[in-house]
Amino acid sequence: MDYGKILEEIFLKIQPYSKEGRQATYIPALANVNPDRFGMCLCTIDGEDYCVESADVRFSVQSISKVFALAMCLSLRGESLWERVGKEPSGTAFNSLVQLEVEKGIPRNPFMNAGAMVLADILLSSLDNPEEEFLSFVRALCGSDSICYNREVAMSERETGFLNAAIANLLKYHATVENDVERVLDFYFTMCSLEMSCRELAKAFLPFANHRDGFAYSGFMLTSSQVKRMNAVMQTCGFYDEAGEFSYLVGLPGKSGVGGGIAAIYPLRYSVAVWSPRLNGKGNSVMGMKALELLTTETKESIF
Amino acid sequence: MDYGKILEEIFLKIQPYSKEGRQATYIPALANVNPDRFGMCLCTIDGEDYCVESADVRFSVQSISKVFALAMCLSLRGESLWERVGKEPSGTAFNSLVQLEVEKGIPRNPFMNAGAMVLADILLSSLDNPEEEFLSFVRALCGSDSICYNREVAMSERETGFLNAAIANLLKYHATVENDVERVLDFYFTMCSLEMSCRELAKAFLPFANHRDGFAYSGFMLTSSQVKRMNAVMQTCGFYDEAGEFSYLVGLPGKSGVGGGIAAIYPLRYSVAVWSPRLNGKGNSVMGMKALELLTTETKESIF
Amino acid sequence: MDYGKILEEIFLKIQPYSKEGRQATYIPALANVNPDRFGMCLCTIDGEDYCVESADVRFSVQSISKVFALAMCLSLRGESLWERVGKEPSGTAFNSLVQLEVEKGIPRNPFMNAGAMVLADILLSSLDNPEEEFLSFVRALCGSDSICYNREVAMSERETGFLNAAIANLLKYHATVENDVERVLDFYFTMCSLEMSCRELAKAFLPFANHRDGFAYSGFMLTSSQVKRMNAVMQTCGFYDEAGEFSYLVGLPGKSGVGGGIAAIYPLRYSVAVWSPRLNGKGNSVMGMKALELLTTETKESIF
Amino acid sequence: MDYGKILEEIFLKIQPYSKEGRQATYIPALANVNPDRFGMCLCTIDGEDYCVESADVRFSVQSISKVFALAMCLSLRGESLWERVGKEPSGTAFNSLVQLEVEKGIPRNPFMNAGAMVLADILLSSLDNPEEEFLSFVRALCGSDSICYNREVAMSERETGFLNAAIANLLKYHATVENDVERVLDFYFTMCSLEMSCRELAKAFLPFANHRDGFAYSGFMLTSSQVKRMNAVMQTCGFYDEAGEFSYLVGLPGKSGVGGGIAAIYPLRYSVAVWSPRLNGKGNSVMGMKALELLTTETKESIF
Repeated sequence: MDYGKILEEIFLKIQPYSKEGRQATYIPALANVNPDRFGMCLCTIDGEDYCVESADVRFSVQSISKVFALAMCLSLRGESLWERVGKEPSGTAFNSLVQLEVEKGIPRNPFMNAGAMVLADILLSSLDNPEEEFLSFVRALCGSDSICYNREVAMSERETGFLNAAIANLLKYHATVENDVERVLDFYFTMCSLEMSCRELAKAFLPFANHRDGFAYSGFMLTSSQVKRMNAVMQTCGFYDEAGEFSYLVGLPGKSGVGGGIAAIYPLRYSVAVWSPRLNGKGNSVMGMKALELLTTETKESIF
Repeated sequence: MDYGKILEEIFLKIQPYSKEGRQATYIPALANVNPDRFGMCLCTIDGEDYCVESADVRFSVQSISKVFALAMCLSLRGESLWERVGKEPSGTAFNSLVQLEVEKGIPRNPFMNAGAMVLADILLSSLDNPEEEFLSFVRALCGSDSICYNREVAMSERETGFLNAAIANLLKYHATVENDVERVLDFYFTMCSLEMSCRELAKAFLPFANHRDGFAYSGFMLTSSQVKRMNAVMQTCGFYDEAGEFSYLVGLPGKSGVGGGIAAIYPLRYSVAVWSPRLNGKGNSVMGMKALELLTTETKESIF
Repeated sequence: MDYGKILEEIFLKIQPYSKEGRQATYIPALANVNPDRFGMCLCTIDGEDYCVESADVRFSVQSISKVFALAMCLSLRGESLWERVGKEPSGTAFNSLVQLEVEKGIPRNPFMNAGAMVLADILLSSLDNPEEEFLSFVRALCGSDSICYNREVAMSERETGFLNAAIANLLKYHATVENDVERVLDFYFTMCSLEMSCRELAKAFLPFANHRDGFAYSGFMLTSSQVKRMNAVMQTCGFYDEAGEFSYLVGLPGKSGVGGGIAAIYPLRYSVAVWSPRLNGKGNSVMGMKALELLTTETKESIF
Repeated sequence: MDYGKILEEIFLKIQPYSKEGRQATYIPALANVNPDRFGMCLCTIDGEDYCVESADVRFSVQSISKVFALAMCLSLRGESLWERVGKEPSGTAFNSLVQLEVEKGIPRNPFMNAGAMVLADILLSSLDNPEEEFLSFVRALCGSDSICYNREVAMSERETGFLNAAIANLLKYHATVENDVERVLDFYFTMCSLEMSCRELAKAFLPFANHRDGFAYSGFMLTSSQVKRMNAVMQTCGFYDEAGEFSYLVGLPGKSGVGGGIAAIYPLRYSVAVWSPRLNGKGNSVMGMKALELLTTETKESIF
C-alpha cells in the first residue's frame, strides 16, 4: 500500500472542506491558532513514516491526552480500574452532568471529562510526581524529549473552566475522587495542555497498533490483551457523542481533541494523526474526520 | 487455527457459569425453553463449519433479527436511511423513552426497540409483502428454506408488550413512523419471532464477515463498504447498554437477543453464533458472552 | 364587593390581549371554535351569579373535568388514593414521560394526563356505569341535567391521541392501571369531552369553595377537610408547568383546560369560570389568566 | 381562637412522633444539636405571642433565610427579578442539576439552592455590604438586634459543600451569576448560617402575614401585592419536593430548613415557627410538619 501517495491525494480531496466548521475559541491560546493549518502523519509498524503539510507543528492535544492517562491507570490498577469508571459510550452530550447525577457519580467512560478527572485522581494518588511521570511516559511513547505542557493553556482553562469545575465538585460530592478538587482540576488541565505534532502523536499511538508483544514504557506496562481492550474503549467512546458516526465513516479506534487533532490506529498495521483546527458541531475536526474517512475508503482497510 | 478444538475447549471452560443468570420469562414461549440448552457454531469464509452441542436446535432470535431488517433498509434507502434513525450508541437503558422524548422522536440507533420499529415502518412502506420478503431474505442469507416465524411468540409479545406499544405510539406522535401503530407493532413482533438455530444464524451472518465483494440476496444488495458500515453499527450499538463491555471483552461486532442468542463476526475470517437462554442483568446471554470472550482470547484474534 | 361591576371592567381591560395566543387545533372540534368568544361567570356562596358575555355558551372543558374525577376517586378511596398517584407538582412539561419512567409508573399528580388516566382506571374498577355516573355527578354539582359528553370530540382525540396512548401503555407496563389500555383511554377521553358553559362550570366548582359542611352529590361525599385538600392540589398542580405563575399572578386554586376554560375558587367566598380559546405557550387561556389576575388584583382578595 | 391552648395540645399530640426521622449530620454544628429539642411560637397580627417549650432557643435557620433574601431582591429588582430565576415548583430532587442543565442555567425557583445562589449574586452586585445589610434586614424584621451568623457553620458548609460548589460553577458556566463563584458560595452559606429562635422567626415572618399595607424594613420595601406574591412562591416552592404534601396537609405558605425549622403564615391572621431537628426523607422536620398539620386541622383555618 503506497500510503505516501494516498495521503497526498487525500490532502487534495479534502480542500473543499477547508473552511467548514469553527475552531475552539473559549481560551485565547486556542482562538489564536491559525485555523488554516493542516497536518497529517501515518506511521507503520514496519517503521515507515508518511507526512503531509504541517505534520511537525505542535498543537494542543487536549482530550487525546486521556488515552495516555488511561494507559497509565490500566497499568497501575489493572481490571480494578473499572470499579472507578465505566467503559460504556456516553450517548449524547445532553447527558454530561445528568448522567453523573443519575449514576451516583460514576462516569460512564474514561474519555468523558468526568472520567478523565477520575484518571487524574488515580494518578495523583498513585504517583510521587504525577506531572513529571505523565510527561515522561508520553515522551517515552513518542520518543521525543522536547514535548511539554503549555502552562498558559492550562491556566486559561482553569480560569474559565466552570463546567469542568462543576463536574469535579460533583465527583467529589459522590466521593468518586479522593484528592482535593483544585488538585484534580489542575492536573487534569495540565495533562490536556500537552503540545505535540502529528508526527509525535502518530508515534505515541504506534504502540497501541503494534500490540503483539504488549508494551512497556517508562515503567508502565500493558499486555497485548490490555492494549487491545484499550483500543476497544477508544472505538466505542473516543469521539464524544459522535463515536457511532466515526466508527461508521472511518472504522478505526481513535481519539479526538478540541484543539483539532485526531489520532487513530489500524491494529497491527499503522497509527495515524491528523490536525486541522476547525471543528464540527460535535467538537471533532472537520477535515480530520474527512481525511480519515478517505484513508480507510481509499485503502479499503478498516477493522470491519 | 483449529476452531473445532477451540470450541470444544470453550464449552468445557464455561461450565462453571452454566447456572448463572435468568432466562426471559415475560412470555410463556420463552419461559418454557429449557435453560440448560447450549449451542454454538462457527462458519469460516472458507466454507468450514464447527459446531458444539445443540447447534441445530432452533430458538427465538428476537433482536438479532434487527440486523436483517437493517440490511434490507440500507439496501432500499441507502444513506438517506440515517435521516430516520441515528447510529449512535444509546447510553443506558435509562434512556429508552427519555431519549425519544428529548430527541423529538428520532431513535438513536436501529437496534434500540424504537429504532427497529422505524425499520419495520420502512419495510412496511417499501415492500408489497413485507413479512414474506423479510422471511425470504433471511432464508436466502442462511440457505435454509425451513426457517419460520413463530406466530404464538409474536402474539404473546403483542398482548403483553405495553412498553413497546408506548414506544410505537410515541414514534407515531412524533411522526417518525408512517404506518398504523398496530401494523408497525405487528410486523415488529413478527420479525422478532423468527426461529433459527446457531448453525443457521452463523450462516446468515457469514455474508457480513465475507464482505469483500459486497452482497446480494433475494434482491437486496449492499456494497462492501455498506456491509463494513453495518458491522460498525453492530459494534457500537449491538448490545444495548453493554456495547462497551462486549467490545472490551470480546472485540467483535455482533448482536444479541433476549432469547439468549448472540451472533458475531470476525471480518474476512468467520461468523459465529452462540445460544444459552440464561441472561445477565443487561439482557445478554451469560454463557454466550463468556464463550465469545474465550474465543477471541484463545485465538488472539479480534478486530482490535 | 360589587363583583358585577368588576367583571364588566375586567372585560374592558383585557381587550388589548384579545388576539394574543393560539387556540388548540389538534382536533377539528377545537380548531373550529370561534377564537374570539369570551365568557365569564362568578358565583358567590351567598347565591349570587355575575356573568359576562358568552357565559352560557358551552365549550369543551377538557382537563377541567379531572377535578370532578378526583373528587369521585377521593370519595371512593379516601387517603389510600395517594398510593396510586402522587400530589406533587410536575415541574416542566419536559418531564411528562421521563417522570413516569424514572418514578416507575406513578404519576406525580392527578392532573397530569397520566394521573388522570389513573383516576379513570379507578372509576372503571369501582363503578358499574362509570360514564353515566361521572355525568350524573357533574350534573348534580352544577344543577344542570342537559350537560353532555361530545362523542365526536372524544373520538377525534382517541384517533389522534398518540402521546396519550403512549402514556396509557406505559402505565399499563408499570401495572399502574388495572383495566384494558383501550378502555382507560376511551373513558379518559370521554370525561375530557364534557361540554359546559362558564355558568355551569362556576356552579360545579361552587361546592369546592363552599366547603364548610363538606359536600355530598350523587352519592359521592367529601368532608370539609377533604375538599380543602383537593383545593390544595388544584393550587399546586392545576396549571401544568405554569402552576407557580398562576399562583403568583392570581393566587387562587383552579384548573385549566386546553379548550380555553379556567375554573377557580376563592374559598368560602366564590367560584369563578372564564373561557377564551386562545392559549399561551403553556396551554393556558391568555385572556382567562389575565381576567383572573385582574379579578384578584382589583378586589385585593386572594388566598395569600 | 385560643391559640395558646391549641399549641399546648398539639405539643402533647405529637409526642408519639418524637423519635421519628433523623437530624442532619453533614456538618458537626448540626450533628451536635440535641435532636430532642422542640420549640414553637405563633404571633398574631394583633400582637399576641404564644410559645411552647424551647421557643427561645436559637438554631440554624438554613434555607428559611432564602425568604429574607427573596424579599430583599424583590424590593431591589421588582418584577425583573424573574428574568434571573423562575417561580415554578421544581418537581423532584432528581431534577436538581439536571434541571439546570436542561434549562440552560436558569434555576426553576428562588428556594432551590441554585435559585438562592442567584439571589446571593444579586445582593452581592447591588449592595455595598451585603452581609451586613442582610443581617440588618432580618434584625429589623424580627426586632431583635442580637441575631447573628454562625461563622463556624458557614465554614463547615463551605468546606464540605461539594454539591453546592458544583451548582455554583454550573451557574457561572451559564453566566447566570455575575460574581466570583467563591464569593457567591461564601455569601450563600453565610446567609444560611443565620441563627434564630422560633419566636424570632415567627416575628420575622409576621410582616408577610400582615401585608395589608405592604412593608418597609431597613430600607427594603414591598407593596401588599408583592408580599402576597411572595407568599404564593412559598406555597408552591417552599418545601423542596414536598411542596404538594405540605400544601395538602397543612395548607399554609411556608419555608423549611435543614436545621429542623419551619416558618409559615396564615395571611392576615398569624405567623408561626416550629423547630425540631429530626427530618423526614425529604429533608423537612417530622414533628414540625405534624405540628402545623394539627394546627390547621384543629383550628379549621387554612388558606383553602
